[in-house]
Amino acid sequence: MNRSPNVAIVGATGAVGLTLLSLLETRHFPLNSLHLLASPKSAGTQIKFRSNALNVKSLDAFSFRDIDLAFFAADNDIAKQFAPIAAAQGTIVIDKSSAFRLDSNVPLVIPEINAEVLTTHQGIIASPNCTTTIMLMAIAPLYKKKQIRRIIASTYQAASGAGIQAIRELKEESLAFLENRPYARSVFPQPYAFNVFAHNSKLYDNGYVDEELKILEESRKILGDASLRISATCVRVPTLRSHAETLNIEFSEPFSVEEAYDTLCKAPGLLKWEERVSGKFATPLDAQGKDEVLFGRIRQDLSHPNALEMWVVGDQILKGAALNAVQIAEYLIL
Amino acid sequence: MNRSPNVAIVGATGAVGLTLLSLLETRHFPLNSLHLLASPKSAGTQIKFRSNALNVKSLDAFSFRDIDLAFFAADNDIAKQFAPIAAAQGTIVIDKSSAFRLDSNVPLVIPEINAEVLTTHQGIIASPNCTTTIMLMAIAPLYKKKQIRRIIASTYQAASGAGIQAIRELKEESLAFLENRPYARSVFPQPYAFNVFAHNSKLYDNGYVDEELKILEESRKILGDASLRISATCVRVPTLRSHAETLNIEFSEPFSVEEAYDTLCKAPGLLKWEERVSGKFATPLDAQGKDEVLFGRIRQDLSHPNALEMWVVGDQILKGAALNAVQIAEYLIL
Repeated sequence: MNRSPNVAIVGATGAVGLTLLSLLETRHFPLNSLHLLASPKSAGTQIKFRSNALNVKSLDAFSFRDIDLAFFAADNDIAKQFAPIAAAQGTIVIDKSSAFRLDSNVPLVIPEINAEVLTTHQGIIASPNCTTTIMLMAIAPLYKKKQIRRIIASTYQAASGAGIQAIRELKEESLAFLENRPYARSVFPQPYAFNVFAHNSKLYDNGYVDEELKILEESRKILGDASLRISATCVRVPTLRSHAETLNIEFSEPFSVEEAYDTLCKAPGLLKWEERVSGKFATPLDAQGKDEVLFGRIRQDLSHPNALEMWVVGDQILKGAALNAVQIAEYLIL
Repeated sequence: MNRSPNVAIVGATGAVGLTLLSLLETRHFPLNSLHLLASPKSAGTQIKFRSNALNVKSLDAFSFRDIDLAFFAADNDIAKQFAPIAAAQGTIVIDKSSAFRLDSNVPLVIPEINAEVLTTHQGIIASPNCTTTIMLMAIAPLYKKKQIRRIIASTYQAASGAGIQAIRELKEESLAFLENRPYARSVFPQPYAFNVFAHNSKLYDNGYVDEELKILEESRKILGDASLRISATCVRVPTLRSHAETLNIEFSEPFSVEEAYDTLCKAPGLLKWEERVSGKFATPLDAQGKDEVLFGRIRQDLSHPNALEMWVVGDQILKGAALNAVQIAEYLIL
């Protein structure tokens, strides 16, 4: 690819889009031009980038002809409609939606784990689900050392996974709760202030929700292991932007706690975060704004000789979405 | 025991103590007299009970001689000091602290599960840890049908587990957060507003915290199965008074989802709580104020043919503490 490409961001006014913009600036991403695209109702909005004010343009009317690279930070419908159009015009699309993740022609990439599949792309590259990425960042280095038989995951997911409106709704609903005022929710189906609820994605007949099946299917694709077994329970908790997860990992043979810490401390993109003396471990607020996925509480599972327990926390908007996309782009222009 | 006993509540001004009082009233618990006890600094406080105002007395100066039954809703130190004194004077103590739970002379009781051991008491009866009780209410009926090999639990625990001050701190810290004001915490070691953190109980060398080991050891005692294997991860989430838990239960043979629902729907103290069409399952706010433990999301674990996943939520102060103690007392006076 052009080492100083013409770049577009689709969904530039959303939580992930704005973070993409900020990452391109702070990481000094080489650019020939930058185009911010959104729905017609956001067109005309001005957004600051490198001391310039850029006009947001309407995606509908935009031609991708001269665009080398497009970050898609929009929902599935937008991705399904516009990513193939962009790719057909020679644009490389890095898509954060789930529209193409399981498509066999589309590489699904976490650069620290499987950057090698990037060479196989046919115009569209997918970035995984945020919960999958945060989990696999800590799982993959262990997986490369010893076979994993089974993973059981429970998640503590932030409002940010549902976008800027969701973050605002959680704050507004919490304030109303504290002030004893009624509040009319519009984003989430269940009360969120001082509450937790099962992840509000599509429920399948097998009792799992879409978010849980994504973790399974995307992990299998990224690790290239169709027999990997994962059972996840995804839960929304009233936090703003980082996801936490408890992971129970059963290996085919014992994996010592020391070796697990040693392996993860040497792996890229991870940060051991714990203070055993005070019993303080990583929290969503600790992870907020950090590029790395924080891990800790690794311990020998008392219920199984070959299993480890672990706690991971990652910024859902950064490594869970925008940062991973930018890292893919950086890999492509190297 | 006397069917209209003289009763004392130790720790009457705390979250559990006040709820005990309210339960004695709403459940028409037969009483000859009621004595509210607390620390000297709370002595003299008046608390309403059945249209009377009762004076809180100082525990230090109180004689248990005429007391038939004492609910201890105080911390371990108070229980260790005063429960043996009360028991020595013939009072039956029902203690919510962890001071005596693993003592071989003390029955540890959830009436729906093991009321039969109540006959063995020697003056002190213990009520289990709230997280254990909420879990076992849903586990025990399944356990009685098929052998359980292993349980993996992750918890979503409310502020109430740390008392009234903790509930207040979470509210105050959340309001300060929303209003961009600094806030000086005094109860919890880590930020709690819009955050989650590893349960702040003592951390052991094996990496587990006390709360997690309580779940293991108390479950073994209550089910009378010293070989039961459980690995738990306990997490505080910013909710006010109900605990939620994800439970992965591996049996020695397959246990169908239908049979699990059927078994739990017929078991006492449980309430199936789910609306599959809308994807709504039990939340802490749903469980708040309810005597029953809510359950749902039972599904065949995709990662193991003999395992089920389940979601349970229970009011930490009710079935998790005060209600269980009152149910024990009701059993004794029958």
